[in-house]
Amino acid sequence: MAVQTAESTTTPDAPAPAGAVDLGPAAALSCRECDHRVPLGPVFACEECFGPLEIAYDFSAYDTEELRARIEAGPANIWRYAPLLPVPADVADKPNINPGWTKLVKADNLARELGVTGGLYVKDDSGNPTHSFKDRVVAQAIEAARAFGFTTLSCSSTGNLAGAVGAAAARAGFRSCVFIPHDLEQGKVVMAAVYGGELVGIQGNYDDVNRFCSELIGDPAGEGWGFVNVNLRPYYAEGSKTLAYEICEQLGWRLPDQIVVPIASGSQLTKIDKGLQELIRLGLVEDKPYRIFGAQAEGCSPVSTAYKAGHDVVRPQKPDTIAKSLAIGNPADGPYVLDIARRTGGAVEDVSDEQVVDAIKLLARTEGIFAETAGGVTVGVTKKLIENGVLDPSLTTVVLNTGDGLKTLDAVAGTGLTATIRPNLDSFREAGLA
Amino acid sequence: MAVQTAESTTTPDAPAPAGAVDLGPAAALSCRECDHRVPLGPVFACEECFGPLEIAYDFSAYDTEELRARIEAGPANIWRYAPLLPVPADVADKPNINPGWTKLVKADNLARELGVTGGLYVKDDSGNPTHSFKDRVVAQAIEAARAFGFTTLSCSSTGNLAGAVGAAAARAGFRSCVFIPHDLEQGKVVMAAVYGGELVGIQGNYDDVNRFCSELIGDPAGEGWGFVNVNLRPYYAEGSKTLAYEICEQLGWRLPDQIVVPIASGSQLTKIDKGLQELIRLGLVEDKPYRIFGAQAEGCSPVSTAYKAGHDVVRPQKPDTIAKSLAIGNPADGPYVLDIARRTGGAVEDVSDEQVVDAIKLLARTEGIFAETAGGVTVGVTKKLIENGVLDPSLTTVVLNTGDGLKTLDAVAGTGLTATIRPNLDSFREAGLA
Ligand SMILES: [Zn+2]
Ligand SMILES: [Zn+2]
Repeated sequence: MAVQTAESTTTPDAPAPAGAVDLGPAAALSCRECDHRVPLGPVFACEECFGPLEIAYDFSAYDTEELRARIEAGPANIWRYAPLLPVPADVADKPNINPGWTKLVKADNLARELGVTGGLYVKDDSGNPTHSFKDRVVAQAIEAARAFGFTTLSCSSTGNLAGAVGAAAARAGFRSCVFIPHDLEQGKVVMAAVYGGELVGIQGNYDDVNRFCSELIGDPAGEGWGFVNVNLRPYYAEGSKTLAYEICEQLGWRLPDQIVVPIASGSQLTKIDKGLQELIRLGLVEDKPYRIFGAQAEGCSPVSTAYKAGHDVVRPQKPDTIAKSLAIGNPADGPYVLDIARRTGGAVEDVSDEQVVDAIKLLARTEGIFAETAGGVTVGVTKKLIENGVLDPSLTTVVLNTGDGLKTLDAVAGTGLTATIRPNLDSFREAGLA
Repeated sequence: MAVQTAESTTTPDAPAPAGAVDLGPAAALSCRECDHRVPLGPVFACEECFGPLEIAYDFSAYDTEELRARIEAGPANIWRYAPLLPVPADVADKPNINPGWTKLVKADNLARELGVTGGLYVKDDSGNPTHSFKDRVVAQAIEAARAFGFTTLSCSSTGNLAGAVGAAAARAGFRSCVFIPHDLEQGKVVMAAVYGGELVGIQGNYDDVNRFCSELIGDPAGEGWGFVNVNLRPYYAEGSKTLAYEICEQLGWRLPDQIVVPIASGSQLTKIDKGLQELIRLGLVEDKPYRIFGAQAEGCSPVSTAYKAGHDVVRPQKPDTIAKSLAIGNPADGPYVLDIARRTGGAVEDVSDEQVVDAIKLLARTEGIFAETAGGVTVGVTKKLIENGVLDPSLTTVVLNTGDGLKTLDAVAGTGLTATIRPNLDSFREAGLA
């Protein structure tokens, strides 16, 4: 568990320097593998073992009911959870795009179609400012960048992240410089370019873009640059915890029994688990079992393949799926995901592109929610897990939709007119529409 | 004023029949022109003078502070204002897409660029479920359709409305049948078709579509059909009042000094004025002057043309603008808009398509908000009105963004990469990005 007590944050090997950055309850960075600690800073890998660094918090001063009241009186965005995030206490007063507090939709029509009797909910993150869950993580990275004195916000991206960084940087007063493959579809370029930051096309594929960004971080040219998902990653990643917080608060401070989460790098799923554990430890929800299920597209299913084979490690794949926002062939947090799915009694499953499209349409026609392909993956996997008897339909179940169908219109391009008629009643009747 | 007292709703000429439809505080329909009253029903034109029918309410039982507390304790959507809307008291428990309570963004960066010192806010309705303000009005129409026993929800549309009706009908359990010109762009067809209702292409232009719909309403084939913006229009239109309510509540129960509203049919602007007047009458805000400004695109500016010419009536135009969601050449509520702008000390202004595009980019690069063309119109008009000395920059000003840039990507298609480089640091430095 990465949630640390006050004691452990003051161990002599890595005290947080007094008067250092103020990131609220964040006390230090701690290695997920070897527990080595370092002060808060723009670093992401353990100097001892190269393991990923995570935020360690000091939550020791909180009284449960005071904390609950403080949260409930907070703003209708992720900053209501500021006491649990690596941000200063006055974060809500700073310019940020203030994502979160998206709808938890009680999906009774979908429940009926899937045979869920225990209560089915869709956590619909298409309601965020740039219409994907990326706004949550970028909002965190912005506050870390501010604390560390960075002036440029950067990332490599092929989609949602570019827009989220561009928008958040614009509002928060940062310069932004986003790197994308030069031959990205025009629509995606426009969505990222409209915010007016630097948008640089790299002559090469997404791997080339990433390799270049790593080079830039190590070079003097990259000084003062915060790469949201590289040197700011420990802070950035914490944004996904807010999905867990919101789901529980919106359920009336109850843990869901089952939750279905998409897997790209796997980070989101691990942080949702971390968030649920924190709520239990803080006494904000009753301690009871919950199951976390991971969802992938068949065309990029390294984690579900490992899960089904009973492996602890994940073998990289070359992605080939319409669910491009999940198409990470070598997911960094894959092993952690496998551990969480097994430990909680969940599972990892995948669905075909055809099933993804069917699931997008199913969610749209039952609940009026137009999901990105990633939402088609989670809804499709939920359906499959119920049919296979893995997910228990008598339990309270939450399915994540992390993005917006308007961004992946191509996936449902086959959808169209149900009839074409002449503008008169005879033609209307002939078409059988009356 | 359309806000009626309890007494006037019980006048002998048109009593609301006991045991009739329950639409909360809605007491009757009242003609805007001649005050003739009829019971609540799916009618939209006065039988005496063909004037538009509006909802007349009975708000007489409300205590101001009790009402305020009830609203503040309500859900984070338009149903917090159920006591002021034509919906039953238990509306929040019914399946609906629950729009509203969208962000009122304090736009300090934009204020700096425009020289506004009195506080500038963007009411960002792109945060609604289908990302336009149309969700507000359709949500109202749904509840009226339920009350009148309709089973099919319908509309004619060329864009936002089709998606809003499709989504809301799907979730609320109605059949939907949306009529559009058969040659609409494929993207727009997909956005409307994904919800799985009937989507009928009419061989003809938008006028032909409308003419056909009017025919259908009068025909037995249209029995049981609620056309949201025709026979349900009096209820539908009330949804725009919620913009006024939210703005004032989000300002801390204060009226803004100035508000800039886009004009399509003009209905939204008149209902925002109605909403502000209701809040004053109910004592929820202090009674003080406010100015309402109307915004049009130059290519469809019948109201601003009439305003500038000092006319009371509006001469129809043939629309030719990229702001297609505002392109109504013969706006039904044009004369009312002129009256409100003049009465409140506001104005009506228009901007060119080029200024619309510039304004979309200005809002995106200052506040990270990617607006639809309609948002470009309001921001562009705000800029122009300040430059012309018409809008007072020392006053608190609210600008409406009623839609989402993802739906009108074509408008900013010229936006693109700021540089293209090879994946190495030398190329990065050559491009002057360091
Ligand atoms: Zn380590
Ligand atoms: Zn009349």
